[in-house]
Amino acid sequence: MVERYLEDFAPGQVYVSGRLHVDRDRIKSFAREFDPQPFHLDEQAARGSTFEGLAASGWHTAAMTMRLLVASDLKPAGGLVGAGIDDLRWLYPVRPGDELRVASEVLDVQPSKSRPDQGVVKLKSTTSNQHGKPVQILTADLIVKRRPT
Amino acid sequence: MVERYLEDFAPGQVYVSGRLHVDRDRIKSFAREFDPQPFHLDEQAARGSTFEGLAASGWHTAAMTMRLLVASDLKPAGGLVGAGIDDLRWLYPVRPGDELRVASEVLDVQPSKSRPDQGVVKLKSTTSNQHGKPVQILTADLIVKRRPT
Repeated sequence: MVERYLEDFAPGQVYVSGRLHVDRDRIKSFAREFDPQPFHLDEQAARGSTFEGLAASGWHTAAMTMRLLVASDLKPAGGLVGAGIDDLRWLYPVRPGDELRVASEVLDVQPSKSRPDQGVVKLKSTTSNQHGKPVQILTADLIVKRRPT
Repeated sequence: MVERYLEDFAPGQVYVSGRLHVDRDRIKSFAREFDPQPFHLDEQAARGSTFEGLAASGWHTAAMTMRLLVASDLKPAGGLVGAGIDDLRWLYPVRPGDELRVASEVLDVQPSKSRPDQGVVKLKSTTSNQHGKPVQILTADLIVKRRPT
């Protein structure tokens, strides 16, 4: 497996993930455990809600996005470790049967001032469905190792 | 169930959740599905990692936080629906056996300019372990219905 060090990342780079299928039963079981609200649990209740139909929990979408990022070609040295999230927006409902994909753009690369062996890569990851419609935008700071000298 | 409308929220209010136990096997199974990296999957591999021991995926911590928020006394009218996340930080590893709790402070309440029937509550939710150590801070904008006139 090729690992990328801080020096391998540069603003403007784009990494595109594979696709992930969104399963109807998994939408409901994820919601039962972590986000038990009617519009994530039951088709009938969801129809009258703000989502106008069964929709995945935003946290389920975020977790599926992480799955796609881990499996993608990003492969930062030391693993995909987030220092924090600057911004996370859910733009459009994620439905049963959707096929999600993530495109990640490197916004910024900064060596750490306090830790000479690492730095931060700011990454904007747009998760889209099979119609190319963005469902989530996530801007995250990743902690990435510098190349050993 | 009492529902709170936009008019029931005010800056400075604090809502405290119940507690949630963090299960060792659930840390691993969540990671297998959504964040399959060694430090979330295997004790031995985790010891040599930046987490210095098995730790929950940050997205698992976020999902457990949502569970605690949904079950808490917040109960916004129309459900707990996030317009977006302003900031999400993971401050300290979440370990097997931890007992998580969330304290949420209302930072701001704003009626919508375009939608007379709703508004936004800005909420800062601090998730802490059984030692009172903050493990995650989440600042979110919730969409909340106004009281029908």
